[in-house]
Amino acid sequence: MTALTIDQQAAARLTGCDAAKATETALAAIDNETTIFSRIEADNARARAKALDTLAATGQSAGPLHGVTMAHKDMFDRAGSITGFGAHPEAGKLAQRTSTVLARLDAAGQVDLGRLYMSEFAMGPTGHNHHWGIPRNTAHPGAISGGSSSGSGAAVGAGLVRAALGSDTGGSIRLPAAANGVVGFKPTQGRVPMTGVMPLCFTQDTVGPLARTVAEARLVLSVIAGPDGIDPVCADVAPIPPRGTGVPDGLRVGFSDAGFLPAVSERMHDMLSTLRNAMTHQGIATETLDITDWASYGEAANVIAMSEAAAVHADRLALVPHVYGDQVRTRLAQAAAMPGFAYVRARQLRQLARKRALEQVFGKVDLLVIPTLPDTAPMAADVDIGGGQGIAQLIGSLVHFTRPINFFGFPALSLPVAMTEDGPLSVQVVGPDWSESVIADLAQWIESTVSAAA
Amino acid sequence: MTALTIDQQAAARLTGCDAAKATETALAAIDNETTIFSRIEADNARARAKALDTLAATGQSAGPLHGVTMAHKDMFDRAGSITGFGAHPEAGKLAQRTSTVLARLDAAGQVDLGRLYMSEFAMGPTGHNHHWGIPRNTAHPGAISGGSSSGSGAAVGAGLVRAALGSDTGGSIRLPAAANGVVGFKPTQGRVPMTGVMPLCFTQDTVGPLARTVAEARLVLSVIAGPDGIDPVCADVAPIPPRGTGVPDGLRVGFSDAGFLPAVSERMHDMLSTLRNAMTHQGIATETLDITDWASYGEAANVIAMSEAAAVHADRLALVPHVYGDQVRTRLAQAAAMPGFAYVRARQLRQLARKRALEQVFGKVDLLVIPTLPDTAPMAADVDIGGGQGIAQLIGSLVHFTRPINFFGFPALSLPVAMTEDGPLSVQVVGPDWSESVIADLAQWIESTVSAAA
Repeated sequence: MTALTIDQQAAARLTGCDAAKATETALAAIDNETTIFSRIEADNARARAKALDTLAATGQSAGPLHGVTMAHKDMFDRAGSITGFGAHPEAGKLAQRTSTVLARLDAAGQVDLGRLYMSEFAMGPTGHNHHWGIPRNTAHPGAISGGSSSGSGAAVGAGLVRAALGSDTGGSIRLPAAANGVVGFKPTQGRVPMTGVMPLCFTQDTVGPLARTVAEARLVLSVIAGPDGIDPVCADVAPIPPRGTGVPDGLRVGFSDAGFLPAVSERMHDMLSTLRNAMTHQGIATETLDITDWASYGEAANVIAMSEAAAVHADRLALVPHVYGDQVRTRLAQAAAMPGFAYVRARQLRQLARKRALEQVFGKVDLLVIPTLPDTAPMAADVDIGGGQGIAQLIGSLVHFTRPINFFGFPALSLPVAMTEDGPLSVQVVGPDWSESVIADLAQWIESTVSAAA
Repeated sequence: MTALTIDQQAAARLTGCDAAKATETALAAIDNETTIFSRIEADNARARAKALDTLAATGQSAGPLHGVTMAHKDMFDRAGSITGFGAHPEAGKLAQRTSTVLARLDAAGQVDLGRLYMSEFAMGPTGHNHHWGIPRNTAHPGAISGGSSSGSGAAVGAGLVRAALGSDTGGSIRLPAAANGVVGFKPTQGRVPMTGVMPLCFTQDTVGPLARTVAEARLVLSVIAGPDGIDPVCADVAPIPPRGTGVPDGLRVGFSDAGFLPAVSERMHDMLSTLRNAMTHQGIATETLDITDWASYGEAANVIAMSEAAAVHADRLALVPHVYGDQVRTRLAQAAAMPGFAYVRARQLRQLARKRALEQVFGKVDLLVIPTLPDTAPMAADVDIGGGQGIAQLIGSLVHFTRPINFFGFPALSLPVAMTEDGPLSVQVVGPDWSESVIADLAQWIESTVSAAA
C-alpha cells in the first residue's frame, strides 16, 4: 500500500498514477483481511476507479478526494445495496437512497471499497461481535480493536484505506482510533447530516472520519459536514476549512486535575505531563481545571442512549429476538425497562450540564486535553463477557473519557501520542460546539511534536 | 359586581371610580365563595388598590389593566407567599421570586385578590380535588367546573373577577372555560414565559387567561406574552396586538369531517353547522377537512405528559405519598412505570404529527373550528371516580378535542356559542404556531354573531 497522504494521493491521480491500479492493489490486500471487511464491493470500486481515471485523463479532478481508496462502517446507506449494521444477515436493509455522507465522499472522488466490521448495531465499545467474530487490532495483536467502529479503526490502522467513516454515540470513533493508533474525529452534534445513517441514539449520534493523520481526518470531515436540507438537526454554521493554519496565538489549553482521571495509568499521566510541558515550551498557555463532575454524567448519558436505542429496536427485539447477539439483546432488554421519567430527567440534566461545561470549562480555556482510554486498549480475551453480568461496568470503564463528550454534544479528536509495548496511547482534544477547526489545529501541532520527539 | 369590560373598568378607574371600592365589593362577594378561592389575599389587594388609586389621582395609569380585579390559579409564584398547587397543605412552597406572568399583570395594574381552586398539581380535567372538594360550576349547578383551572373558570363565570390566569397542558384552560361558559385562551407553546410557574409537563405546559369576552382574554394574553430573558423556551416572535381589527379578508376556516367528531352530540353538530353557515353568509371561506388522525395522538400526548409529570413528582411520591390524593397518586404511579422508549417514540411522533398538521391542515386553511367538549360539561357525580379503574378512559374522553392541540403546541381559544338547559356549548378556534391574533379576530366575530342571534 502507498504511504502517500490523501492530498498526495489525489494529486498523484492527476499526474499519471492510476486509480484503477491503486484500487487493484487495495483489493488484493483486503482479500486477506477477513476480520476487517464485512463485504468487499470490488465491482463497484473498479467501475468507480475507471470513471475517475477517465476524468483525470481529461485533466479534471472529481474533488479533493480524487481516487482515494476508502471503506466505511456498514451503517451508511448506498442505494441498491444492503446496509448490514454489523448484525445478523436477516437484519440487513436494502437501501433505497444513498446517505448524504457517502454521496458527498463520492462527489469528492473517493473509491469506496466496501463495508467494514462494526459492533452489532453500533452497540459495544470493545468491538466484539456475536455474529462476525473479533476484529483484529492492527497496532497490538490480541488487544480489542475498539468499538463500535472497529473495522474503521483496523482498516486505517492496517493501511488498507487512507480514511474510513465511523459513528460515535459514546466513543465509537475515538475508541477504535485509540486502539489502532490512528486519528478519530467526532464532530459537534449537528455538524454532519444523519440522512441515510443507521440511528442508534438520535440526540447523541455523530458521524466522522478515522484517518492516519490529523490533516486527513480534517479534510474528510470538511467534505461530509454541513446541512443537506433533509436532516433538520444539522446546523447551518460556518464550515470547517479543509486545511489548518497552525495553532492560533493566545490559545488556552486545559488539562484535568486528578478528579476526572481516577483510573489513568502512570504512563498516561506521564504522557499528559509531557504534552503539557511541550505546550508551555511552545508558548501555549495551559491551565488545570476541575472537571470531576464530567465523570458523573455517564449514567445519564447511558439512560438517554439506551432509551433511544430501545425506541429503535423494541419492536424487532420482540418479534425476532434471534437476530440479536447475547450482549446487545441483554442491553436492549434492560433499556426497554428504563422508565420514561428517568429519560426526561437525564435530558434536563444534560441541559444544565452543558451550560455548566460551557461556562466553567470553555469560559476559561479554548480546548481541553484528556485521555481517550485510561491506558492502552485491553486484551480482547479479558473483556469478552458476552451477555453476562458486569456489562454496564465494563462499558462504563471504557467510555469514562468519551461518553461525557457525547452527553454535552461537543466535538473531540483522538490521536495517538505514544507507542508502548502494549499498544498505542491516545489523547483527545475536546472543544465547545463548532470548534472542530481549532481542535484540528492543536491536534496537528501535537502530532508533529510527538513525531519529532519519537 | 360590575358588568364593565376590562377596558371600561380601567378607564373608569381613571375617571373617578375608585379601585379601593371595587376591591372591597369584590372581596365581599368572594367571601361567600368557599369552593372557588383557595386563599383570599385581602390585605395585599387592599394595599394594591390604594396604591393604584393614589397613582390615578395624579392622572396616571399603571397600565392597560389599571385597577382590574383578578385572581389566579394557585400555581404562579409570588415572592414571600405560599404557592399551593391545589395540593395537600404540606406540599405548598414558599416562593422566593415572583413569576413573570404575575409580575407583568402587576405592572399592568391588576388588583390580585388571591388564589383560585385547581385540580391537584394541575392533574385532572374534571376539577375534582381530593383535598379541597368539588368546585362549583357557575353556569350549570351540579356539573363539573372542569379542570385543571377549575377555580379560574368558576371565578370568571361567577363574575367575581374579570379575568384569571390558568394553565393548559391537555385542555386545562379550555375545559373550565367551556364548563363555565367563559372564554379560555391557550397560547402557542413558547409564547408565555414559564418562569415561576409550577411545571407539570415542560414540553406541553402553557399559561393563558380565562375571561368573559374574547377581547379581554386577548388583552390579558398580550400583557403576559413574550420572552423574559429567563425561560429559554419562550420565543422572540412578533407580539400579540392588544386589540383586534376584525376578521381579515380572505380568511379560510376549516371544519372537521365526521372522523374526528365521533362522540359529538347532535346539538353540537347543529351548532357547528350554524356557525359555518353564518361564516359563509359573511363571505368567510370554509372547508371540510379530514383530521381523523388527530384523535390518534391522545395516548402519545399522555405518555409525554405523564412521563414529564413523573420526573417532577417521582421523588416526592416515594417520600411522602400521603400528600397526594388517590387519583393523582394512581396516575403518577402509572406514569413512573412508563418506559423511556415509549416517551422517545411519542416525542418523535410529535415531530411528524406537527409537520403533517402544518402541511395538511394549515396548508389549506388559516384556522380550524372544532368542539371544546363533545357536548355540555358532564355532571360532577357522574365522573367522580377517584383513583378507581377507568381514569384513563374518562380523561381521554374529556380531552379528546383539547389534548391534540397541546401535542402539536398550537394556540387555541375556547368560547361559548350557545346556552342549553344542561349548560353552555363551546367551540375552539385553533391555528398554527403564533396565530393568536387572527384566532382572536375570528373568535370575536363568532362571539358577536352568536350574541346577535341570541
